[in-house]
Amino acid sequence: MKKKVAIVSLSGGLDSCVTTSIANQEFDLALFHANYKQRTEKRELKSFHEIGDYYGIEKRLIIDFPHFSKIGGSSLTDRKITVKKADLSNKFVPDSYVPFRNANILSACISWGEVIGASAIFIGAVCEDSSGYPDCRPEFFTAFEKMANLGTRPETNIKIITPVINFSKKEIVLKGKELDAPLHLTWSCYQNEVEACGICDSCALRLRGFQLAGIEDPINYKTKPNYI
Amino acid sequence: MKKKVAIVSLSGGLDSCVTTSIANQEFDLALFHANYKQRTEKRELKSFHEIGDYYGIEKRLIIDFPHFSKIGGSSLTDRKITVKKADLSNKFVPDSYVPFRNANILSACISWGEVIGASAIFIGAVCEDSSGYPDCRPEFFTAFEKMANLGTRPETNIKIITPVINFSKKEIVLKGKELDAPLHLTWSCYQNEVEACGICDSCALRLRGFQLAGIEDPINYKTKPNYI
Repeated sequence: MKKKVAIVSLSGGLDSCVTTSIANQEFDLALFHANYKQRTEKRELKSFHEIGDYYGIEKRLIIDFPHFSKIGGSSLTDRKITVKKADLSNKFVPDSYVPFRNANILSACISWGEVIGASAIFIGAVCEDSSGYPDCRPEFFTAFEKMANLGTRPETNIKIITPVINFSKKEIVLKGKELDAPLHLTWSCYQNEVEACGICDSCALRLRGFQLAGIEDPINYKTKPNYI
Repeated sequence: MKKKVAIVSLSGGLDSCVTTSIANQEFDLALFHANYKQRTEKRELKSFHEIGDYYGIEKRLIIDFPHFSKIGGSSLTDRKITVKKADLSNKFVPDSYVPFRNANILSACISWGEVIGASAIFIGAVCEDSSGYPDCRPEFFTAFEKMANLGTRPETNIKIITPVINFSKKEIVLKGKELDAPLHLTWSCYQNEVEACGICDSCALRLRGFQLAGIEDPINYKTKPNYI
């Protein structure tokens, strides 16, 4: 029987790579990538393609979202705001929050999904042990799925699947290992494109995950603080 | 007292122009426009700016959505699909439906609205007497608003306002006249950029509205069939 088609929103980071490895077990995949003039745009795109090649997935759509840098409001896209050193206390919405980014990405994925007849969109959002982004919460994705099915053709019925949303970073690392996901090809740093900085929110969360899992992170870091 | 800020998604067509005139009564406005490689992209942008000038609104954001033409699936963005002659029977989702377009536009508006502190997004969607687009139905916008408030910062609270959604085209024309909206600056044709074709879905709906209102449509048409 022909497998159903799913789109994965693949940034090229750890979470979306492991999400791809999970989705790949059950679906024929199509890969979506967003360029939004984030600081590490080129490096993320490289990881996107390398992970796509690893899984032999041909269907890929790379979309530019120029408005995030035009509107600013995030340290990832606005060069006037500095990428801060990590604060893992999880009390506030951090500066790296890109306003409503996931809704923009998912909307484009639904548009594409409606044309290619996809049954699901996978997105590697993480809620627990994560960075306090409002558009990474389970209730947001539930509401999005409902909205999407009201705003598309009657025959379109696309699920939003967030397989790692309640995972800790440690669990994501372990799941990636279990499924032989190409973690060495991923990129998570918000700041640098050659050597990961090791100190931004994203590096800190990732490194803590690997450290708690007792596994060596296979990518290169400028500095590797101990986060546990 | 300082007025609250609202964003209007202004395509430059009749419905969004009248929506702007309604929003302008109560809010300080910021205008959003989407280029998505639709056939009449340049002509719509001209109307957008002329309507913005008419109301003296300085805050404008013009965003390119390259994915609609990349994914195809609509006669507005896919040159392989012909723009059909109007069928006002309202039985099917028409070929001009751009998959999930309004969700993509609204998501970008919410991102911008979150940065500039907007209280509302106005969009000139029309449900009755309209063209059967799933992303123009009231229940879609209600679900979108709920989703948007779950996916943004706790202090962000943006309403989605669709003031003409239950209007007939005739009522939209009359409301525009009542509020002195610059209907002569609008553009609705899906097909042409110099003279409106008069026979596509959008021209047919517009012309019928003017004809039922007993008002002369002030823009130029190649042909002006009688639709009543």
